Amino acid sequence: MNIVIVGAGPAGSLLACYLAGRGHRVAVYERRPDPRPRDDDEGRSINLGLSARGVKALTDVGLIADIWPLTVPMRGRAVHGPGGKVTFHPYGTSDDQILHSIRRRDLVTKLIDHATEAGAAFHFGHKVVDLDRDRPALVTEHGTVPADAVVGADGAFSTVRTLMQRGAPADFHQEFLSWGYKELTIPKVPDYHEALHVWPGGDDGLIVTHPNLDGSMTATLFLPAGRLAAITDPEAFFAERFPDALPLMPDLAEEFAQRPVGHLVSIRTTPWHDAGKVVLVGDAAHAVYPFYGQGMNSALEDCTVLDRCLAAAEDPAAAFAAFESARRPHTDVLDELSRRNFVELREQVRSPLHLLRKQADLMLARLLPGRWVPLYTMVSHSTTPYADALARSRRQDAVLGWTAAGAAGLLALTMLARKGR
Amino acid sequence: MNIVIVGAGPAGSLLACYLAGRGHRVAVYERRPDPRPRDDDEGRSINLGLSARGVKALTDVGLIADIWPLTVPMRGRAVHGPGGKVTFHPYGTSDDQILHSIRRRDLVTKLIDHATEAGAAFHFGHKVVDLDRDRPALVTEHGTVPADAVVGADGAFSTVRTLMQRGAPADFHQEFLSWGYKELTIPKVPDYHEALHVWPGGDDGLIVTHPNLDGSMTATLFLPAGRLAAITDPEAFFAERFPDALPLMPDLAEEFAQRPVGHLVSIRTTPWHDAGKVVLVGDAAHAVYPFYGQGMNSALEDCTVLDRCLAAAEDPAAAFAAFESARRPHTDVLDELSRRNFVELREQVRSPLHLLRKQADLMLARLLPGRWVPLYTMVSHSTTPYADALARSRRQDAVLGWTAAGAAGLLALTMLARKGR
Repeated sequence: MNIVIVGAGPAGSLLACYLAGRGHRVAVYERRPDPRPRDDDEGRSINLGLSARGVKALTDVGLIADIWPLTVPMRGRAVHGPGGKVTFHPYGTSDDQILHSIRRRDLVTKLIDHATEAGAAFHFGHKVVDLDRDRPALVTEHGTVPADAVVGADGAFSTVRTLMQRGAPADFHQEFLSWGYKELTIPKVPDYHEALHVWPGGDDGLIVTHPNLDGSMTATLFLPAGRLAAITDPEAFFAERFPDALPLMPDLAEEFAQRPVGHLVSIRTTPWHDAGKVVLVGDAAHAVYPFYGQGMNSALEDCTVLDRCLAAAEDPAAAFAAFESARRPHTDVLDELSRRNFVELREQVRSPLHLLRKQADLMLARLLPGRWVPLYTMVSHSTTPYADALARSRRQDAVLGWTAAGAAGLLALTMLARKGR
Repeated sequence: MNIVIVGAGPAGSLLACYLAGRGHRVAVYERRPDPRPRDDDEGRSINLGLSARGVKALTDVGLIADIWPLTVPMRGRAVHGPGGKVTFHPYGTSDDQILHSIRRRDLVTKLIDHATEAGAAFHFGHKVVDLDRDRPALVTEHGTVPADAVVGADGAFSTVRTLMQRGAPADFHQEFLSWGYKELTIPKVPDYHEALHVWPGGDDGLIVTHPNLDGSMTATLFLPAGRLAAITDPEAFFAERFPDALPLMPDLAEEFAQRPVGHLVSIRTTPWHDAGKVVLVGDAAHAVYPFYGQGMNSALEDCTVLDRCLAAAEDPAAAFAAFESARRPHTDVLDELSRRNFVELREQVRSPLHLLRKQADLMLARLLPGRWVPLYTMVSHSTTPYADALARSRRQDAVLGWTAAGAAGLLALTMLARKGR
């Protein structure tokens, strides 16, 4: 097949690897310039947390060995409590249950190089202006590109999606979080470098950091967008809200003034495809808030699933329909989980009850290996489809509830029996 | 002010009446040709049910006397049960609690004529191609039109909305109902002409009719879109599902083949305005499924509220912000009510328990005039804001629940007392 992919981000470049590897003719059109020569991420989501689903996809296309040297392990969360006390919470029960911090640009560079070697052609600086859904053909500012199928991997504000769904009865849900964010730099950290640091501030902000290869960390400050935009003296703000983070950021005032306020969007939509001629993957099909760290991983997993559907189906129409059927229920669940984890990061990591619950979950996982799996473990350290992971977690919670009720019942009976004596 | 309105449908034309009446300079740009010379609705929502909110708006601009002769009263629902039995359910407890069927084209024609007399200029066949949000100015295929403010009254698939929200953090929810519809004609009806006829078919379809001035009725068949598109022999379908409706439609086969399948969309979004320069009204700001008959009425009420906000506020920015704050909570509730009424029309009008409940509601309204008002009455026969109507209805339901529980409790006590004797 002759396949045109729009977007050379993680999803588009990985899909190019998959499809070129299967012998398809693949051309990728990207609006932005080639990211490889420049060392500049334009302030866009610099760090990503690679987990099991992403690892599986990169393993599939034979790239994982090249990726490992570019990653920094994150073995757990380092939670900065009030008063500066740091508590470390491991991500799992074993050494392979960790996350891997990687710069977006490093990952994309490897993917583009790898896809190019596999035969894919990349065209940068080509903006999509129209889509001929009947032929199909992609129309860019530089001309018309006919194809057997067009893939929209062009992100949350996908032009391909808009053009594909134009005039069609499509469901579309776009929501912006009322919180915005700003990326800041922590030049070096004294300890816990191999961790994701969290400063949970309740309603008053949230800081999350990712480690970099050079020993620095990228910190993201989340705050209600209006309040974030209204900060005129960032050092005073940090001194009040996050006093223990302030000394870690010597360039705070300058960076704060330079960096833009970012916004966070959630997108759910259907259909993802049109008549075997157009299909969406990654953020173009489903964008989530970043708080479960699964946005990129789910985009990479899309490519794994779409590749499998294309290999198994008789024609692209059947493959694309099978892809959406197989995938959308799970990305809908991820949307819900990502919303919930925003509350968890802000609030619950500070709550003793929540920590107790987490510890019980991990303890049961150690006592019942393979039979008791915490939700976070299934989502981040396995490739269990998201909705299946949630369903299993609910069954486990029900068992835990009954067990607790049974134990309470036994205790009550024992006490009654004693009283009766 | 120099105000440019996009869209010459009911909302755009009515707003032109309001604003021109206040002495503003008003120009209306409409993509379609002038509807007045032609007697053709292009198969689009031919009949509308005018109710209290619409009547209030048309009264405000001094047009209601010209509208009455174009309407046919609908005094209640005529429900066609299985076996052909027709039951009549009045819409309210008094003669003024009725709806008024009017052809869309008749209403729009009057509004355009009236706005023109008040000084508004209408430009038909002008398609919007861009919006300069800074000046602001509207760009049509025929040139650039500067204005103090641009109003998007261009319907559910509003171009002004798309251009206004482009690149902005906007929430947007668009959902298509899985059911489609087809409009058919009932040339004349033996009786119950002054009624909205309903054939509730559960999951197997729904027919709703509106009376026309010439004694005919416009029937709308609703059915899951896939099944509607798959009907090859409409007479056989009607013979099986709606046997008593079949003899009323002599041109069924021909009409069914000619008329397109319509789709139903619900849209909720925010923001509705941008910096005092752009604002949305009607379906462009909120589109609902048609099952409460409030789509057009709420669009007309928007104009009443926006006119009031513009008159009261110091500047357009404050007026537009006040408009969205005052209005969106209510149109969000209308969205919910319209979804619920789809179930009611399909199912509950057939259910004895539901009918009993409806009768109790109307009986209480008669016993406690002004103190007990059914939800339907508040929504359709009053201008109580939608969310306030829902809240009051919930309080009434709670009272009804407590009263029923109290009565049941008294009954139980009485029986116990007798047993005790």
